[in-house]
Amino acid sequence: MGVIHRYKGQFEWEGVSLSHYPPEKEMKGVSVRWLIGPAEKAPNFALRYFEIEPGGWTSLDQHAHDHGVVILRGRGQVLLGEEEADWSNPVEVAFGDVVYISPHEVHQFKNTGDEPMGFLCVIPPR
Amino acid sequence: MGVIHRYKGQFEWEGVSLSHYPPEKEMKGVSVRWLIGPAEKAPNFALRYFEIEPGGWTSLDQHAHDHGVVILRGRGQVLLGEEEADWSNPVEVAFGDVVYISPHEVHQFKNTGDEPMGFLCVIPPR
Repeated sequence: MGVIHRYKGQFEWEGVSLSHYPPEKEMKGVSVRWLIGPAEKAPNFALRYFEIEPGGWTSLDQHAHDHGVVILRGRGQVLLGEEEADWSNPVEVAFGDVVYISPHEVHQFKNTGDEPMGFLCVIPPR
Repeated sequence: MGVIHRYKGQFEWEGVSLSHYPPEKEMKGVSVRWLIGPAEKAPNFALRYFEIEPGGWTSLDQHAHDHGVVILRGRGQVLLGEEEADWSNPVEVAFGDVVYISPHEVHQFKNTGDEPMGFLCVIPPR
């Protein structure tokens, strides 16, 4: 049966709690809320809401699964690279921008604004 | 390699065009924009932006794949049902609300407001 997570404002949802990353992940000021995933018994994908504090950044990641991202709040930069990180050519992103990160692509997000940077992120099931 | 679809405002994106439904689908005032899918060579999921005109509605659907929906614009109603449609108990939705539609669940969206109702919709790959 379907699930509704009603939006409470301020990027909070009913029935959705804040998840924390394991401390071994190297990142700064990043939180995640799982909107759709195992708790909703979703077999085919997961949808998360990430938020990065001003000055924060996600871990520099590279993995077999892809990401579908839509920026909902704030502004920042996305690093994309085939093989290694190149911060000399970041992509500036803000509300509404869509980023597709292919399998095995190097990627990192950085909040360069003065308010939280929030985005939806789709992944395949674990 | 990754793909960026920059948001142009007014729920339009660079590099994304409006798709039309085949006329045999019974719906009213519905448009769709594929933000991530086959064109982006995304193997694991697709992300679309749907918009329903005031007074419009999507087809009454039931299928094996699930949907992850986030309302971005306007307001409306969602019908959810295990076996058949029951419009006596619709769910009111507006900006930010998250709807997970399980596999095989009956579902329909209706714009009950006076502006376009827009939402993101995730599906598994075809």
